[in-house]
Amino acid sequence: MSQKLEIGKMAILLASLSEEELYSFRPSLDEVSYCQGKVGSMNMQKVIAAVETAAKRNGLIQEHLYRETHALYHAILEGIEGVTRGKPVIGEMSRTVGLRFSVVRGKPYHDPKEGEWLAVAFYGTIGAPVKGAEHETIGLGINHI
Amino acid sequence: MSQKLEIGKMAILLASLSEEELYSFRPSLDEVSYCQGKVGSMNMQKVIAAVETAAKRNGLIQEHLYRETHALYHAILEGIEGVTRGKPVIGEMSRTVGLRFSVVRGKPYHDPKEGEWLAVAFYGTIGAPVKGAEHETIGLGINHI
Amino acid sequence: MSQKLEIGKMAILLASLSEEELYSFRPSLDEVSYCQGKVGSMNMQKVIAAVETAAKRNGLIQEHLYRETHALYHAILEGIEGVTRGKPVIGEMSRTVGLRFSVVRGKPYHDPKEGEWLAVAFYGTIGAPVKGAEHETIGLGINHI
Amino acid sequence: MSQKLEIGKMAILLASLSEEELYSFRPSLDEVSYCQGKVGSMNMQKVIAAVETAAKRNGLIQEHLYRETHALYHAILEGIEGVTRGKPVIGEMSRTVGLRFSVVRGKPYHDPKEGEWLAVAFYGTIGAPVKGAEHETIGLGINHI
Amino acid sequence: MSQKLEIGKMAILLASLSEEELYSFRPSLDEVSYCQGKVGSMNMQKVIAAVETAAKRNGLIQEHLYRETHALYHAILEGIEGVTRGKPVIGEMSRTVGLRFSVVRGKPYHDPKEGEWLAVAFYGTIGAPVKGAEHETIGLGINHI
Amino acid sequence: MSQKLEIGKMAILLASLSEEELYSFRPSLDEVSYCQGKVGSMNMQKVIAAVETAAKRNGLIQEHLYRETHALYHAILEGIEGVTRGKPVIGEMSRTVGLRFSVVRGKPYHDPKEGEWLAVAFYGTIGAPVKGAEHETIGLGINHI
Ligand SMILES: [Mg+2]
Ligand SMILES: [Mg+2]
Ligand SMILES: [Mg+2]
Ligand SMILES: [Mg+2]
Ligand SMILES: [Mg+2]
Ligand SMILES: [Mg+2]
Repeated sequence: MSQKLEIGKMAILLASLSEEELYSFRPSLDEVSYCQGKVGSMNMQKVIAAVETAAKRNGLIQEHLYRETHALYHAILEGIEGVTRGKPVIGEMSRTVGLRFSVVRGKPYHDPKEGEWLAVAFYGTIGAPVKGAEHETIGLGINHI
Repeated sequence: MSQKLEIGKMAILLASLSEEELYSFRPSLDEVSYCQGKVGSMNMQKVIAAVETAAKRNGLIQEHLYRETHALYHAILEGIEGVTRGKPVIGEMSRTVGLRFSVVRGKPYHDPKEGEWLAVAFYGTIGAPVKGAEHETIGLGINHI
Repeated sequence: MSQKLEIGKMAILLASLSEEELYSFRPSLDEVSYCQGKVGSMNMQKVIAAVETAAKRNGLIQEHLYRETHALYHAILEGIEGVTRGKPVIGEMSRTVGLRFSVVRGKPYHDPKEGEWLAVAFYGTIGAPVKGAEHETIGLGINHI
Repeated sequence: MSQKLEIGKMAILLASLSEEELYSFRPSLDEVSYCQGKVGSMNMQKVIAAVETAAKRNGLIQEHLYRETHALYHAILEGIEGVTRGKPVIGEMSRTVGLRFSVVRGKPYHDPKEGEWLAVAFYGTIGAPVKGAEHETIGLGINHI
Repeated sequence: MSQKLEIGKMAILLASLSEEELYSFRPSLDEVSYCQGKVGSMNMQKVIAAVETAAKRNGLIQEHLYRETHALYHAILEGIEGVTRGKPVIGEMSRTVGLRFSVVRGKPYHDPKEGEWLAVAFYGTIGAPVKGAEHETIGLGINHI
Repeated sequence: MSQKLEIGKMAILLASLSEEELYSFRPSLDEVSYCQGKVGSMNMQKVIAAVETAAKRNGLIQEHLYRETHALYHAILEGIEGVTRGKPVIGEMSRTVGLRFSVVRGKPYHDPKEGEWLAVAFYGTIGAPVKGAEHETIGLGINHI
């Protein structure tokens, strides 16, 4: 890959690995900003809000700039396409998610003019609202910011 | 997570990590069957065929059983939903993909009656058919087999 | 159901039953116009064209009236949503269809002002381009004309 | 068709024919397990739950096996794609459904190794939440189990 | 364009221009029937209902004819595809809309047998449920009636 | 609307109005950069390429910056969702488009930190590949750049 930093890969590792498993990837994480979080819900609005709130609280986007909110929102939605496999509906389709997520902000390209980009990753489970009746799911969204 | 084996996580690590990075995850990979491959194309049919061929050649599914082909096909399509973020079209939408992929077959649940499941993961880039004009993308599909 | 004639049910029976099985439904078919046909393809454009051609040749729509072509086209597309289960792509998704289809034109409602409606039904198989690696599929589209 | 049993056709007949109309198809139904039910709702979660509950109560799937719940869930969703023609939303899109449904479990293929498969069919009406302002709709989902 | 009247263009101008800006387009508007309205909501059902109610109150469709309700409903949904860019969900995707809309009924084609058609247009904003965190959006649906 | 400049409205007017009709809107167009073009095709890749080429030739985006190509690409795709009403497929669905398009680049918000945004609009016809068998269609995409 011709990218300098793989922010998408970093994001998916931050969302899916344990603290211990992440240990060897720490050095590359120093080159980006990121946050991590968790959300479990049948309500997609809550999933979106959980990521937006975490990103704002951790200073990954400038809260009062719509430009950055817009970049993050579309990255979240692209991640949700993976999680829901093309049907961005959770509860109405009688399923629930239990997700860990991460937001990574950094400069993935060699050319500094390419500027900053965002990666939003989800990892967890999706399934019936019954304990254990679920399988894993993953999603990644990438956007320029 | 209440699963015994996280075959989705294994699949995404197999698709996205280097040999070296995978080293510490090797012990858990001993508990499943898997294969890895690569495909670059503007043609989705070629992406699907690359995964199906790799899975058959490596004995991950029984080639002459439609039941297993069907399970794999739907897992591939779910993975492609993540890669294409809900629009399973590549060339016609003027984009190309360069992907590493993996197929994992194993028993993720404690109860042996839950049987075998498949995970198909993709990791790579999607973008304009111009070198460097691309960003990362990820997809994961899971199915019972 | 408050309808006088169930043109959708007639259409699906015309597409899925054998001549012999259809025998007992013949009386109700006298109240509508209909045609039947067959198409096998990996190319959705050919599937659409097969239905349009059959409908025109059998006088189910007036060939030179866009209004009727438009009504039929949207009914076909709605039927294809069922056949492809929400992803109106065949060959590019590495699958092929073998379909019988029917077009029914009639007055399903009691109130004569509700006028004429069209039903387009598909029944057959969808699957890998390998003999036997396929399962059944059905679609129905309904439109006012 | 090279299948031994057409479980999809059986399912759609079970969902759309009257008891009397079904009479001549009874012999083939003896080779499969099936159940029938009804649901009317603006809420898709209720439609899904109605089918799941009927399938479990009638022993068509093993309730405590996620594997079977998963197979059924995806078959239901594929059927709903036909019913909603690619937009699996009911009330939020200001429409309501009145559906009869069926679940068929059997061995459609000659090769016994192909095992058991499920067919879920819907037949009924979709339309505005006003009596009579509706037209017919059909959906079919098929999955290996 | 070979059409006599561009009802879609009229509809989008009615939805997006000010009274003053519309002034010079008035003569062509005399050849069609139309109405205008406004709706702001996170609930798509309310958006659909606002257009349906306005169309009925202003006599653009015959209220008690399902045929006309059906034509309008599909035109509205097609317009919403543009507004939501392919995901007909608002609140559940954590977004809100503020829209002006119009419904135009007329005879766009030279051949009188082509009869009457409907155009439904939306223009306004879509975005986060926070003032100012929004951008413009447009949608147009066309149907024969 | 709280925006300073309505770049989406400008874009749709540039795509749908004649030179003469545009006359009175000229003053506001001085505050943005824009280009216009035309494309007719059954191939979506050609539609996308036509807009990208026009935008690059007219200096609306910096050709060698992926960041800007990415912003434009997603704005084009959002516009295409409106044109195709949620199914971004043209020829494969047996339809063809004849479109005028525009790309507008400007600063829609009062706060200068909101920076530059792009609007891509399409206006024209979509229909069967038969002269006259077509109706109007519109699409608008908006993105930060
Ligand atoms: Mg992108
Ligand atoms: Mg699943
Ligand atoms: Mg309808
Ligand atoms: Mg299948
Ligand atoms: Mg149309
Ligand atoms: Mg946006």
